[in-house]
Amino acid sequence: MREVKVQLFGFGNVGRAVARVLLEKERFFREKYGVKFKVVSIADTSGTVWLPEGIDLREAILVKENFGKLSSWTNEYEVYSFSPAEAVKEVEADVVIDVTNDRSAYEWHLSALREGKAVVTSNKPPLAFHYEEIIGEAERRGLPYLFEATVMAGTPVIGLLRENLLGDSVKRIKAVLNATTTFILSRMEQGVDFERAIEEAQKLGIAERDPSGDVLGIDAGYKATILHCVAFKPITFDEIAVKGIAEVTVDEVKRALSKGKRIRLVATVEDENVRVAPEEVSGPLAVSSNENVALIESDLLGELLIKGAGAGLKETASGVVSDLVKASLRLVE
Amino acid sequence: MREVKVQLFGFGNVGRAVARVLLEKERFFREKYGVKFKVVSIADTSGTVWLPEGIDLREAILVKENFGKLSSWTNEYEVYSFSPAEAVKEVEADVVIDVTNDRSAYEWHLSALREGKAVVTSNKPPLAFHYEEIIGEAERRGLPYLFEATVMAGTPVIGLLRENLLGDSVKRIKAVLNATTTFILSRMEQGVDFERAIEEAQKLGIAERDPSGDVLGIDAGYKATILHCVAFKPITFDEIAVKGIAEVTVDEVKRALSKGKRIRLVATVEDENVRVAPEEVSGPLAVSSNENVALIESDLLGELLIKGAGAGLKETASGVVSDLVKASLRLVE
Repeated sequence: MREVKVQLFGFGNVGRAVARVLLEKERFFREKYGVKFKVVSIADTSGTVWLPEGIDLREAILVKENFGKLSSWTNEYEVYSFSPAEAVKEVEADVVIDVTNDRSAYEWHLSALREGKAVVTSNKPPLAFHYEEIIGEAERRGLPYLFEATVMAGTPVIGLLRENLLGDSVKRIKAVLNATTTFILSRMEQGVDFERAIEEAQKLGIAERDPSGDVLGIDAGYKATILHCVAFKPITFDEIAVKGIAEVTVDEVKRALSKGKRIRLVATVEDENVRVAPEEVSGPLAVSSNENVALIESDLLGELLIKGAGAGLKETASGVVSDLVKASLRLVE
Repeated sequence: MREVKVQLFGFGNVGRAVARVLLEKERFFREKYGVKFKVVSIADTSGTVWLPEGIDLREAILVKENFGKLSSWTNEYEVYSFSPAEAVKEVEADVVIDVTNDRSAYEWHLSALREGKAVVTSNKPPLAFHYEEIIGEAERRGLPYLFEATVMAGTPVIGLLRENLLGDSVKRIKAVLNATTTFILSRMEQGVDFERAIEEAQKLGIAERDPSGDVLGIDAGYKATILHCVAFKPITFDEIAVKGIAEVTVDEVKRALSKGKRIRLVATVEDENVRVAPEEVSGPLAVSSNENVALIESDLLGELLIKGAGAGLKETASGVVSDLVKASLRLVE
C-alpha cells in the first residue's frame, strides 16, 4: 500500500466533488491500485487548512457547506493565509490538484513542479496561455502534469490524444466543447429567445453569473487551444479565432432545424489553425444536454469519435481523479 | 535518438501494413518521439529472416508480395527455420510484435517476457484464454504487454479502459466489435440472403475463407472477453455466452428495419457476465461499414461513446504501431 499526499486547491463545487469521490471510493483505490490518498491541505479563497496527518474530508465538506468558507474551521484545524505559491512551497505533498479558476495559476503550477510535485488540473488558462513552458518544465523534471478535466470533463479526449493514437498523425479535430452554449442553442430551437435561454441556464446552475466566458466562445476557445497543443504543437489562445453565439438568432436556429440541422458552437482544430464559431451541423456533432463530442481525423485510423459528458460535478471529478490515480501510479514507478 | 530493435512475427496483410507505416513514417517517429525503429527479424510461416543490423523493409515487402514467402529471399539474407519460441530466444530485440493468428502464441509471448522483451500484439487467443497469466508475468517483470489492436483495431478502447477512466467503476459495456457480421447484416437489410452476403464478404476480402470465426461470434467473443479482463477482472472465453448470426433471417432483419432498428452482433460486458448475441439496436450501436463502437457506462462519467474503425489494414496497423511507440517510450523511462 502506497500513501499519496495530496494538496487540493479549490473547494467549490468541483473541489468538493473530488473530495467526495476520494471519500466514497477509498476502498476501490486501495484494492484496485494499492494507493491510499491522504489529503494534507485544502485551500479555498478564505485560507488554507493544513494537517500533515491528513484532513477529515467528511468534516471539511460539512464546514464548507454550512459556513461557506474553510476559515470558519478554527476549532480543530489551523487555517493559514498562504498565497498559493507559498502553500505549494510550505506543504509537503506528492500531488497538487488545482480545481480553481485562478488565471495566474501557471506561476504556482511551475513552482509546484520545481518543488518536485506532480500537478493535476482542471484549470484551463495556465495551459491555454503557457502550455509550452509548463509541459517543458514537467518533462525536464520527469513529473506528471495532467489535465484531462480541462477539456470534455472526464471524457478522456486528452488521454486519447496524448497517450494513445501515437502512430497516427492527426489531420483535423471537429468538436463541440461547451455544454452551456449547447443548452442555450437547444432552448432557442424550442423558440426561447437568447436572453431568456441564458437566464434559464443561470437558474439551473449551467451558466455562471457572468455568462460571457461561455457565450463569447472563450471557454471553448481555451479548450480548442489545449487540443491543438496536444494534437499538433504548442500555441496560445491569443493565436486562435473565436466567435461566440451572441449574434445567433432564433430565426437562424429554426432555419437550420428546418433543414434537419442544428447550430452548435464548433471548434475546428487543424495544424496552426484553430477556430471556434457557430456552425450548422448534423450527425454526431449535433449533441444535446451536457454531452461534448470530438471527431478526430487522422492518417491511419481515419475517423474516430469520442462522445461523453462535457460538464457536471461528478463528471469533472472523474477526470481529476483519473489523473490523480495516473500521477500516483507514475510516481511509484 | 534511441534505437528500438523490433522482432516482427507475421508478415501477411497486417504485418506488411505495419512495416509500411514504419517505413513511411520513419521521420515522424524520429522527430516526434526521438525513436528509430530497427526491424531485426521478420517471421512468416516459411521462415525467419534475421539481420542484427536491420532489415530493409522495402525489400522485405517486395519479396513477400512477389514470391509469397520470406524464405525465397535467400540471395541476401539468412533465413532460419526457428519455431517462434526459438526465435524469441535467439534474436536480440527490445519489442516483439505478434500479428499472427497463432492460437498457441501465449507460450512464446510468455517466453518473450521472460527474455525481458516487451510484447505488442493484435493476436486475440493468447489474451482470451490466458490473460491473467500473461499480464501477471508482464507486471512482475515491469514490461509493457500491449494489445490495443486486438479489439476495435486502432480505435483506442483498450487504452481508454486500461490507462484512462482510472477513477471510474465500469458498470456495463455494450459494443459492436465485428465488422464482418455488420457487413453481412447490412447486406441482408438490402434483401441479400445470408449465404450470398457471406460470399460477397469473402470476395471483398472482408470475410476469411472459413468465415465461421466471425459468423459464429467467436471473434466478437474473444474481444468481449478481453474487454471484460480490462474493465473488470480476468476471465476466459470458455466462461462467456456466445451466439452468432447464423440463425438470423432476412425476414427478421427487415422486420427490425421496419421499426427503425437494425440487427447487429452486440457484446454486452458486465462484471462476471459476458454475452455476445444478435440484438435489435438503434442509435449509436447501429453502426455500418467497418465501424466498431463501444458504449461504456460508469459511475462517475455516465455514458461514454467511442466509435471508429474496427477493421482494415492501416487501421489495425494504427493500433499496433501506437503500442510499439508506447512500449518504446516506457522502455526508455
